[in-house]
Amino acid sequence: MLKAPDHQVAGHQARDGSLGPLVDGSGHFYKPLQNLDRGSKELAFYTSFNSMNGIPPRIRRFFPSFHGSETFQASDGSGLLPHLVLEDLVFGRKNPSIMDVKIGSRTWYPGVSDDYIQKCFTKDMKTTSMSLGFRLSGLQVYGSEESGYWKPSKKAVQSFTVEDVRLALRKFVSSDVGWASDKDTLPDCSLATRIYGGPSGVLAQLIELKEWFEDQTIFHFNSCSVLVLYEKESALRGKTHGAAVKLVDFAHVLDGNGIIDHNFLGGLCSLIKFISGIVAEANKALHGLESSADGLELH
Amino acid sequence: MLKAPDHQVAGHQARDGSLGPLVDGSGHFYKPLQNLDRGSKELAFYTSFNSMNGIPPRIRRFFPSFHGSETFQASDGSGLLPHLVLEDLVFGRKNPSIMDVKIGSRTWYPGVSDDYIQKCFTKDMKTTSMSLGFRLSGLQVYGSEESGYWKPSKKAVQSFTVEDVRLALRKFVSSDVGWASDKDTLPDCSLATRIYGGPSGVLAQLIELKEWFEDQTIFHFNSCSVLVLYEKESALRGKTHGAAVKLVDFAHVLDGNGIIDHNFLGGLCSLIKFISGIVAEANKALHGLESSADGLELH
Repeated sequence: MLKAPDHQVAGHQARDGSLGPLVDGSGHFYKPLQNLDRGSKELAFYTSFNSMNGIPPRIRRFFPSFHGSETFQASDGSGLLPHLVLEDLVFGRKNPSIMDVKIGSRTWYPGVSDDYIQKCFTKDMKTTSMSLGFRLSGLQVYGSEESGYWKPSKKAVQSFTVEDVRLALRKFVSSDVGWASDKDTLPDCSLATRIYGGPSGVLAQLIELKEWFEDQTIFHFNSCSVLVLYEKESALRGKTHGAAVKLVDFAHVLDGNGIIDHNFLGGLCSLIKFISGIVAEANKALHGLESSADGLELH
Repeated sequence: MLKAPDHQVAGHQARDGSLGPLVDGSGHFYKPLQNLDRGSKELAFYTSFNSMNGIPPRIRRFFPSFHGSETFQASDGSGLLPHLVLEDLVFGRKNPSIMDVKIGSRTWYPGVSDDYIQKCFTKDMKTTSMSLGFRLSGLQVYGSEESGYWKPSKKAVQSFTVEDVRLALRKFVSSDVGWASDKDTLPDCSLATRIYGGPSGVLAQLIELKEWFEDQTIFHFNSCSVLVLYEKESALRGKTHGAAVKLVDFAHVLDGNGIIDHNFLGGLCSLIKFISGIVAEANKALHGLESSADGLELH
C-alpha cells in the first residue's frame, strides 16, 4: 500500500531501490529517520513542538501534523527503519504546483563539524542562499492537461541564479506554459494577485509567519524549507485553489535560547519582498497605475 | 581648533599621534579617508546617498548629515589627507550615553579577499555577531556627576557574551550606577520605558528603520553600525533626553541590486527583540501585570 510520493520536488526519493519517504494514499507521509542523528533530531523536534502549549493555531497550521513514528521495512529494502508519520501535504490536491524554498543565507550553524560547515558554506555561496537569503531546492509548476508539469531537474534548480529564481517565482503563478519550452515567452503572472496576493494568499501567510519569527525565540530553524503549494486548475476556474505555506525539514532545528532566528527571518523577508514585488506589478498591470498601492498593502 | 572627539566609543582614535577622526567643536566631525579603498567607498556612499531622491525624511534622519570632504593635515601628522565632513552626532549633548552596535551576523561579503573573509568570520564567531545577529563595538553609559561614565575597554567589549550584551542593554537605561563597580547590583532599568519605549523612543526609531529595510533594495549595509544616544541627566529631570538612533560607518556598503539587506535586517530584528523585551519587563514592573501588553505594543 505504501508507495513513493507522486509530487516530491526535493530531498531523497524512494525510487529505484533508494531510501526515501513513502505515502499511504490516505493522507500520511512516512519519512525515514535519516542517518547520523538527524532523524532523531527531527523526531525530537516534532515531539516537542506537538506537545508545546502557547503555539497559536494560526502558526501551528504552517507545520505538517505529526502522528508519531512507526517502524517498518525501508524503501531501499535495507531492513526495518523508524519513520516519522506526518501529514501528506499534497493529499487530495489535484495537479499541485509546489515550490520548496530553503530559507536562510547560512544553512550551517555553530557546533557542527568543520567539514559540514565547509560543505554548506560552499553550497550557500554557489547557490542563491548567500545573496538572496534563500534558494529554491525544487519545484514543479503545473501547466495544463496537455503540457503537464514544468519540473526542472535537481541539478538545474541548484544552478539557478538570482534572475532564474525571480523568473521561477513568476512562472509559478502564470497560466501560460509557453515559457516552459520557449525561452522567449515570458510568464504572464495571471494568477499572481489570486495565489500570492489576497487576504488568504501566499504573501499574507508568509507575513503571518514572519511576524511570529520576529517574536519567537524558542527554535532556530536551520536549513529548513518553506513549501508553497496551490492548485492551478481550480484557480483558473475561480474555485478554491488551496494556496498554502508550510514549513518542512526539521533535522537541524536548535533551541533558540532567547534569541530570534535572525538567519531565517532575514531570508523570509527577502522572499516576501520578491513575492510582494510580483503582486504589486500584477496589480499594476491589471488595474493601471492608480491602484498600484494595493500590491504594496501587505508590506 | 580641531581636536579628538570626547565621546568616541569605537573605531580608530586620534590620540597619541594616531590617525583618527577630529571635531571642530561647532558641529562637524572630520573622518579621515581610511586606507585601501574603504575611505573612497564611504565618500562615494555619502555622495550618492546625499543626492538621492526618494529617501523619505523619516529615513534620512537616521544618517549623519554630510558636507563634502576637506583635505588637511591628518591627526597622526603623516601629511595631508582628505577627510569626510560629517555631522558631529554628539555636538551639544551633555554627558551623552552612547552605544555602537555593529549589525549583521556576517560582517564580510562576497567579493572580498579570502583573508578578509577569514578575519571577519573569526571575529563574528568569537563575538556575539553570529549568535545574536549583532555585537557591541563600544559603549559609554553616563552614571552621575560623581560616578562619571561606565566605559568598558575595547578588549572587554569585544569579549562580551550574549548575557553581557543583554546586561549592557539594561545598564544603558539604568539610573543606578552601583552596577558599574559592583557585580551584585543589578541595573534598575528605570529609564527603559522613557528612552527605549514611547512614541519617539529608541524602539520606535528602530522599528521605523526596520520597515525601511524590509523594503529598500538600493544598498547593502555591510559591517555598518547603529549608534544609540541619549542624555541621562535630562531624562532623569523629565526633560528632553534626545534619544536617537543613527547609522554610521559606510566603508563596506554595496549596491543592493534589487535584493533586501537580509543580513542587516535579521540582526536589526534581533536587537529590536532584545530592547522590546526590556521595555515590556519595565512596563510590567511599573504598572503591574494588567498593562504588560503596553510594552509589546510596538512589536
